[in-house]
Amino acid sequence: MQTTNDRQDQVTLSASWNEGAAKQSIIDFVKRVATDGSPDFVPVPERIAVFDNDGTLWCEQPVIQLVHIMVRWVEMAQQDPALRDQQPWKAAVDKDMGWFRTAIKKHYGGDESDMPAIAKGVLSAFEGLTTEEFAGRVDAFFRTGTHPTLKRLYRDCGYAPMVELLRFLEANGFTNYIVSGGGRDFIRQIAGEIYGIPPERVIGTSTSIGFREQADGGDLLMKAKLDVFDDGAVKPARIWSRIGKRPIFAAGNSNGDIPMLQFANRPPRPALRLLVLHDDAAREFDYVSGAERSLALAEQYGWTVVSMKNDWNQVFAQDEAKK
Amino acid sequence: MQTTNDRQDQVTLSASWNEGAAKQSIIDFVKRVATDGSPDFVPVPERIAVFDNDGTLWCEQPVIQLVHIMVRWVEMAQQDPALRDQQPWKAAVDKDMGWFRTAIKKHYGGDESDMPAIAKGVLSAFEGLTTEEFAGRVDAFFRTGTHPTLKRLYRDCGYAPMVELLRFLEANGFTNYIVSGGGRDFIRQIAGEIYGIPPERVIGTSTSIGFREQADGGDLLMKAKLDVFDDGAVKPARIWSRIGKRPIFAAGNSNGDIPMLQFANRPPRPALRLLVLHDDAAREFDYVSGAERSLALAEQYGWTVVSMKNDWNQVFAQDEAKK
Repeated sequence: MQTTNDRQDQVTLSASWNEGAAKQSIIDFVKRVATDGSPDFVPVPERIAVFDNDGTLWCEQPVIQLVHIMVRWVEMAQQDPALRDQQPWKAAVDKDMGWFRTAIKKHYGGDESDMPAIAKGVLSAFEGLTTEEFAGRVDAFFRTGTHPTLKRLYRDCGYAPMVELLRFLEANGFTNYIVSGGGRDFIRQIAGEIYGIPPERVIGTSTSIGFREQADGGDLLMKAKLDVFDDGAVKPARIWSRIGKRPIFAAGNSNGDIPMLQFANRPPRPALRLLVLHDDAAREFDYVSGAERSLALAEQYGWTVVSMKNDWNQVFAQDEAKK
Repeated sequence: MQTTNDRQDQVTLSASWNEGAAKQSIIDFVKRVATDGSPDFVPVPERIAVFDNDGTLWCEQPVIQLVHIMVRWVEMAQQDPALRDQQPWKAAVDKDMGWFRTAIKKHYGGDESDMPAIAKGVLSAFEGLTTEEFAGRVDAFFRTGTHPTLKRLYRDCGYAPMVELLRFLEANGFTNYIVSGGGRDFIRQIAGEIYGIPPERVIGTSTSIGFREQADGGDLLMKAKLDVFDDGAVKPARIWSRIGKRPIFAAGNSNGDIPMLQFANRPPRPALRLLVLHDDAAREFDYVSGAERSLALAEQYGWTVVSMKNDWNQVFAQDEAKK
């Protein structure tokens, strides 16, 4: 059994991070909080790190969970042909991604006209399944689901430098959580394999579930009703609800992560806030849409901005490295 | 570093459990699920144990959290004399426990006439405090709060055999959670000291909390609004929400624990369900009110019933043993 200090020396950010201010700020912060006798020392149980998922730990173009739901919509339309003429089932059957893009663009412009249909489609997609049946479906999806342009399995769309960061933090006594606007039970099914994060450390959006008693047992059934949309100001509330502690390390990539990043800061205790900047059209994508305010705050308050293009020497794990 | 097997041999149920069917059923179950090669072997990450708190891990007469809230009601009435003439503040100021007992008796009889006043009092008691301020108040309460008839600090009202059971399960690879109808943030403040259970493994009732953004930081403020009442059928839903796994071991003491105990059973995987029976007027209390159906199901389905009187050779930790 290695001690934390032994492991600290062995796990570094060398494989996938380039030298630079971002890497250095992470290493400096971890050293400050994890070194006994440091004025900024934080005890191990308080070394909580929280990570957004879509766009922070894995690729969000397209939103992988939406692909999974579309598979289900096609299936529903096959079983009930009346759905073929209704959105969003129609767009799913027709593989009309443009309809979804337009709906989201309208949403950002203040036109919510397509949102009720999408919400109805999302919430009703898995109604009546047990939580275990849903888990089985997600598992099957990840066995073969493949990204359309990156040409790799969705399960291989996690960012290698972020996975390396998770291991580096763990080696220094941190406990990592995912805090995502994406679906809690969707992410749980794959977070162990991709990130080494177990189900109990995945916080996310959820539909309501209800207990169905059956003799000496029972199941939880999914309802067509939103439980929690885990985004924006809801993120810190869910972090407290689930963990009962403030994080000292928070990473995100969009405006929806701002409150979570703010919540991690409680002086005089140190905190590191990190934003992933998608500026790498060659290896991933180049966009700041939805991240404008978070980037402005990063500049104002000195949060660490990670440029995918400059700070990462690889974006996804090499196939040979994974074997 | 000891291996799980070394520790398994060292941590037993010998200090506070009498020989008998209850103790034996626990030991047999743990051996079945934790022995490599056993047909009922359960991998360590799936060895989840859930415990109700009031009446299962600690004394529930009086409900300790209610005592804490009454302290606050007296304080509120001092600050706002108009409250002195309104229930429940009036009863708190007058130390009129009879009013609360009557209200609860009426509630069990179907007369909810006092419940709106109590709910209003409970929900508004800590409105506007930050979660950290609330934690500080709870901490102060537990430093001196003393049980009126047992004449011991509330923090010493945990059942020694249950604490021994928690350690025994941990030594055999289990992860223990509290799943309580009591307040999540109230229990969190003391669960580490009494039970060795950290905040992230306390699931319970909560009032809503809202994020207040402040420059590069922010707080969570308590609202006078119920978030989740974690009892009955809500318990399995909250277990899934928080852990993402079914427990294989569930312990409770009342009808409100039935769905949680049922949920733990998913054949062919083994499960142990345990009910604490309060039949010890000499050392604690003797009552079955609110536990009638759970005891009937225990008999019907062979759940393990623990008689405080017969199965425990001590109820609370001896003072000398604690030093």
